[in-house]
Amino acid sequence: MRVFTGIQPSGDLHIGNYFGSIKQMVDAQKDSETFAFIANYHAQTSVNDGKRLAELTMQCATDFLALGIDPNKSTFWVQSDVKEVLELYWVLSSFTPMGLLERAHSYKDKTARGQATNHSLFSYPVLMAADILLFSSDVVPVGKDQIQHVEIARDIATKFNNQYGDILVMPEFRVQEDVQTVPGIDGQKMSKSYGNIVNIFGEEKAQMKTIKKIVTENVAMEEPKEFENCNVYNMAKLFLEGDNLIALQNRYKNGGEGHGHFKIYLGEVMWEYFREYREKRAYYEKNQDEVREILNMGAVKAREVSMPMIEKIRSATGIKY
Amino acid sequence: MRVFTGIQPSGDLHIGNYFGSIKQMVDAQKDSETFAFIANYHAQTSVNDGKRLAELTMQCATDFLALGIDPNKSTFWVQSDVKEVLELYWVLSSFTPMGLLERAHSYKDKTARGQATNHSLFSYPVLMAADILLFSSDVVPVGKDQIQHVEIARDIATKFNNQYGDILVMPEFRVQEDVQTVPGIDGQKMSKSYGNIVNIFGEEKAQMKTIKKIVTENVAMEEPKEFENCNVYNMAKLFLEGDNLIALQNRYKNGGEGHGHFKIYLGEVMWEYFREYREKRAYYEKNQDEVREILNMGAVKAREVSMPMIEKIRSATGIKY
Repeated sequence: MRVFTGIQPSGDLHIGNYFGSIKQMVDAQKDSETFAFIANYHAQTSVNDGKRLAELTMQCATDFLALGIDPNKSTFWVQSDVKEVLELYWVLSSFTPMGLLERAHSYKDKTARGQATNHSLFSYPVLMAADILLFSSDVVPVGKDQIQHVEIARDIATKFNNQYGDILVMPEFRVQEDVQTVPGIDGQKMSKSYGNIVNIFGEEKAQMKTIKKIVTENVAMEEPKEFENCNVYNMAKLFLEGDNLIALQNRYKNGGEGHGHFKIYLGEVMWEYFREYREKRAYYEKNQDEVREILNMGAVKAREVSMPMIEKIRSATGIKY
Repeated sequence: MRVFTGIQPSGDLHIGNYFGSIKQMVDAQKDSETFAFIANYHAQTSVNDGKRLAELTMQCATDFLALGIDPNKSTFWVQSDVKEVLELYWVLSSFTPMGLLERAHSYKDKTARGQATNHSLFSYPVLMAADILLFSSDVVPVGKDQIQHVEIARDIATKFNNQYGDILVMPEFRVQEDVQTVPGIDGQKMSKSYGNIVNIFGEEKAQMKTIKKIVTENVAMEEPKEFENCNVYNMAKLFLEGDNLIALQNRYKNGGEGHGHFKIYLGEVMWEYFREYREKRAYYEKNQDEVREILNMGAVKAREVSMPMIEKIRSATGIKY
């Protein structure tokens, strides 16, 4: 079963990203054929600074390798290194009714807010369909807001196959139900746009400073405290299991400690949790050529799948003359 | 000065195509750097039959080589053989306001007629801009209905250059003013959609049969005839010069011959005019591998221009990481 994931190179990763999707992607490598690419063409819909995009791409590769994407198990590449996707994007455009794109939430939301939009923002669901279909993806793990994109890909693939025969594989979306919601420092869902994130790879002091900002109840030091709805506890439990978790619960119940103490503990636990990843990251940070080499090899692997498919499409559609 | 032309592979060429644009393109080879490509990606917006598209592409190449496109003077290639154009197409999409495409005549006309449209039909002006801009075209000869497409390319190029510096060359359109209007067999402008065409490369008998259908005045054989507004004369004058033209005028004035005689004469003159082209066509028709070879070499030449440009764009926009 081929599981397909696109990764937006969007800068510093936070623990919401990690527990919300990256961990699942890394775990999926155990029993699935994982295809994961850094969506740098897609990023161009919002990043108009070339230097920044190049940096984001390398940062994203470095981060994901550090966090456990294993190039021996996964096919891991940068979107623009397998350019055939743009040919499929063009081909599929003739099988994409305008209405399908006009109804896409992402576009509707933006125009509803009166944002001036460019064509790339309108058309990127077609590029996304090309991404998915070029690699005959069976399963696309998505958040709920992304289901529509897989449905669009299915619609387009159906129209294409009706014309040219059973060439494209129909992808299924898989909503990640069992994912823990990661609270931000204000208790809302952690999200860059809320400004409530805790980075994965910050400096130790800066990390602790962020954690100290977590919003907590005002309860006297000596009093017992509720852990169930405490933002500190709910973040800490992502990193703790079994006895350690129960021990923390007991510290809440026992009283005699303030939230400040729990925050310090959370900082330490988190710092420890990501230690191995941080070391790996430091290694790749120092060896960016090795990262490039891994990406190159990933593109070679990706092309082993994409080339036979695009050749089939070129023959079927008459691009091959 | 680089003159840039896209050719739709649309099937049998008629003499309206020849005198309306092909002859100018061939003549331009004398004093301009001519870039001409067969727009097979564009053709996919209307041709959904792969076998047909492949045939149309080869037919188009064969016809244009026969009619005088000289691969030693011109850069002549098939669009899909220089795939970088699709990368520029994607990049430019982020510099294309939706309004620019919504206002494009070709799209507005189709939606106004209630036609259901696909995304490719909406977005092809961006692909056309990429065609023009990838090759730093100075001049794009156009019919009046195509001026808007060059203007769209200029708008997009301006926005791109504002962001990334002076990378794209601003193209100028050149409306072909001095082109003779070629009448169809019914006297209207010759056009496939009016069903009034005379092919360039038909069989001799079929050609004569078509010419016999040209609409003429009903005047008795012995009477003098007006040539100025005669559809037969107006077609014949495309092929005649000097004494031969005057001789035909005199035959009209003298009377004693019917329009049927003039039609036979037109058929003969036309047959003679295209003899050399027909022979060249027969040669290329028999040697399709040579045509393919010419197209391959054309793509190599085209890429000498497109590759440095796309590399510049990849660096500027951060695709190159």
